[in-house]
Amino acid sequence: MPSMLSSVRRSLRASVVLANVSLATVLFATPAWSDPSKLEVFPAELARVAAELRDKALAESDAYDFIASLTTEVGPRPAGSVNDRRAVAWAVERLTSYGLEVRTEPVTVPHWVRGKAAGRIVAPYPQHVELVALGGSIGTPEGGIEAEVIEVEGVDALEALEPGAVEGKIVFFNRRMTRHPQGAGYGPAVQARGSGPAKASPLGAVAVIIRSAGTSSHRFGHTGGTRYADGVRKIPAAALSNADADMLERQVATGKPVRFHLELGCRNLPDEMSANVIGEIRGREKPDEIVLLAAHLDSWDLGTGAIDDGAGCAIVSEAARIIAALPQAPRRTLRVFLAANEEFGLSGARAYGELHADQLVNHTAAAESDLGVGKVSILRSRVAPDRMPWVRDLERLLSPLGISHVDTPAFGGADLRPLRPARVPFFDLPQDATLYFDYHHTADDTLDKLDPEDLRQNVAAYVTLAYLLAETETDLGRAPEPEQ
Amino acid sequence: MPSMLSSVRRSLRASVVLANVSLATVLFATPAWSDPSKLEVFPAELARVAAELRDKALAESDAYDFIASLTTEVGPRPAGSVNDRRAVAWAVERLTSYGLEVRTEPVTVPHWVRGKAAGRIVAPYPQHVELVALGGSIGTPEGGIEAEVIEVEGVDALEALEPGAVEGKIVFFNRRMTRHPQGAGYGPAVQARGSGPAKASPLGAVAVIIRSAGTSSHRFGHTGGTRYADGVRKIPAAALSNADADMLERQVATGKPVRFHLELGCRNLPDEMSANVIGEIRGREKPDEIVLLAAHLDSWDLGTGAIDDGAGCAIVSEAARIIAALPQAPRRTLRVFLAANEEFGLSGARAYGELHADQLVNHTAAAESDLGVGKVSILRSRVAPDRMPWVRDLERLLSPLGISHVDTPAFGGADLRPLRPARVPFFDLPQDATLYFDYHHTADDTLDKLDPEDLRQNVAAYVTLAYLLAETETDLGRAPEPEQ
Repeated sequence: MPSMLSSVRRSLRASVVLANVSLATVLFATPAWSDPSKLEVFPAELARVAAELRDKALAESDAYDFIASLTTEVGPRPAGSVNDRRAVAWAVERLTSYGLEVRTEPVTVPHWVRGKAAGRIVAPYPQHVELVALGGSIGTPEGGIEAEVIEVEGVDALEALEPGAVEGKIVFFNRRMTRHPQGAGYGPAVQARGSGPAKASPLGAVAVIIRSAGTSSHRFGHTGGTRYADGVRKIPAAALSNADADMLERQVATGKPVRFHLELGCRNLPDEMSANVIGEIRGREKPDEIVLLAAHLDSWDLGTGAIDDGAGCAIVSEAARIIAALPQAPRRTLRVFLAANEEFGLSGARAYGELHADQLVNHTAAAESDLGVGKVSILRSRVAPDRMPWVRDLERLLSPLGISHVDTPAFGGADLRPLRPARVPFFDLPQDATLYFDYHHTADDTLDKLDPEDLRQNVAAYVTLAYLLAETETDLGRAPEPEQ
Repeated sequence: MPSMLSSVRRSLRASVVLANVSLATVLFATPAWSDPSKLEVFPAELARVAAELRDKALAESDAYDFIASLTTEVGPRPAGSVNDRRAVAWAVERLTSYGLEVRTEPVTVPHWVRGKAAGRIVAPYPQHVELVALGGSIGTPEGGIEAEVIEVEGVDALEALEPGAVEGKIVFFNRRMTRHPQGAGYGPAVQARGSGPAKASPLGAVAVIIRSAGTSSHRFGHTGGTRYADGVRKIPAAALSNADADMLERQVATGKPVRFHLELGCRNLPDEMSANVIGEIRGREKPDEIVLLAAHLDSWDLGTGAIDDGAGCAIVSEAARIIAALPQAPRRTLRVFLAANEEFGLSGARAYGELHADQLVNHTAAAESDLGVGKVSILRSRVAPDRMPWVRDLERLLSPLGISHVDTPAFGGADLRPLRPARVPFFDLPQDATLYFDYHHTADDTLDKLDPEDLRQNVAAYVTLAYLLAETETDLGRAPEPEQ
């Protein structure tokens, strides 16, 4: 697999390099952005600088080193951990060295620790299985629990069972995630992770195990938060690696009763303090108008958070670094927002929304990078319909990177949720996520999974977007009412 | 990565299916093997039956179910474990159901148990790392050991160090395995695993950690036996996943002293009894002449031994099953040899050599399948030079499977070692090993890594070879003296 991927990657990398070269040639020959007939609203000078920044980001970037440093010197940084606080200190230092005005804003975060996790099939055929606790799961009693397994595909199938079918059993949610360039398989797969335990508990289940909501064929469970429901007895919950879910599925398919032993040592500890890290370039003309670039600094604990979301932090920070190096600051304030605890309850986003409640309407636009580091090929926007000429000019600047606008409205990212009610215009530059869910939330989220060329392409896209948003004289207005 | 692989696999699978179809078309249209001008020594009837068996094996096979059953009902089966004995019982039952005459031959095997394995970088930047003990390693004292790390590429570099450089340190062997279709990168990479601890100990090292001798980018250590030297103090030895070796390499590259903590709970227990499993089709004319098809029944403990060597066991057993279903037994005895403990000292091979010492010269040919389940594209032979016309006819029968003869002499496989002094002719049908070392000796050696189409192609190749060897009237003579 890695072989295939490596060679695929090498060719991808080669084609990116070639693309860049030919791209540069094209740009210098007939710069599309400076052709007045091709630009609807951008002044030529605005487009010229944006294109320069874009090409500079393609040519050289500190983003890879950012991630190497964060993952090597800090590593995994789950909410509430010592590393969470170390990551904040690390980010303050890094963003300061980038020439940004940096501050932290306190965030209270939950503190859940994983402890040991062990699972085995006891009967009919004893087998060790690889699993991980779902984030937030309670532990089992010391020594674990053992019960018969009942397999269902998803929550709907669980609820369609006869009364009593689940009583005293371990529910095995066995829905396989499908692979998709935009990660569309994640939603259906993740449902049981989020609500499976809360749904199975009232039916009498003693625990839940799920097939990992990921596409890896490797023997790692895929973690991620589960949500218990108020007033419902909490039961332990874990995710099997896909290979081990296959094993359990085969044993269930024998028709013989399958017994499973689960031991989880996870615990919820008292809340801890963490912080959102804010780095700004103060706007030269409209300092109170804010263009927000977000990513999240926390990570799950199993990998080193290189792709989720070290990559996003690096991409938005590097975009700001490049802009900060310009002879003059852009018109508006450009704010990098590295959120605390996105993974386990969006504490940082909530705190941002509360602290900046009065300022939310002053956010003129926002974007978040939190889908790894595949190449970006899509631009989505959420702006008032009459501002589409501006978006089309943006697309023209991004098109040499292989990026096209699509009509699906921008989502904005989880950490931008507090900006939604203020109808802040959103822009998405989603990465190709074909491989993302092989690594996401697993021990495999490590530096070696990043392609430096793809990373530079991401930075180039973000710096173009960020500069145009911060510098443009156009008022982008408010976004349409969000759908509920 | 898996995505890429999955799609690569899907296309491979599709092309195999297409190849099979077009192949069958070609065969039925102008069967190459029945064209007298194309066969040098094979009688037409011999070739006709061999081709029929080959095509039957391509069309349907029990081999996948063999591996599914072995890995699901038994699972990992390291020498000396309870599962080792369960695997023997399972294999006796399976081969008996295949119509073979089955017996076991006792083998005394070592019994090493892994216990816990934990590693972390203590300084300069604390990080948890994923590692596994090397097979046979002694454990550390309870609570582990901590020491400074010294990095070298390989054993040569270690021996070139100044006296005292290693004293009191943990030696980190950091040679990266390169990917190669025939697994040629394994030899250089595995050197430190085999002899690193024995070489580092006399220099004063307190432990050895190596970069895994595997190509996986996933966070599993790659196990495999290490060989301590007589009279040399044993020191603990473990293998880091490639991603974690990268992490350690980056920390060493900072130039700061790197301290590492290692705790291994592995132990050597008293020897246990295991068994070689022998399944035969007694020859109808020359029952004392033996054609040997080997694979090994044991596996390492981390995965379920689906590819190493469940696949080999399935391939040779299925070839025998197809031949056993013929109206009459072939001329010579066809013997399936599922060896005990290949992985940790070749106990089964040695026992076979001792028990059958007088019979070794009666082995007229032998082949072993122990390189996973990639497609076979190569035939290697080790026969007397004047028997090459026979080998060329064999190649003609295999060529519709995409297999060509190469001049490199056959190796024969580790379990055939006792047959070498008797100069038994060897045949190799090595699998494409491009992906093999992503899974080999890791937790990832599981059923889902097998492509059923590739597996059938392997069986087709082995059944063709086995039938021809057992049925031919040609005396293949003795192989040339092996090189030492």
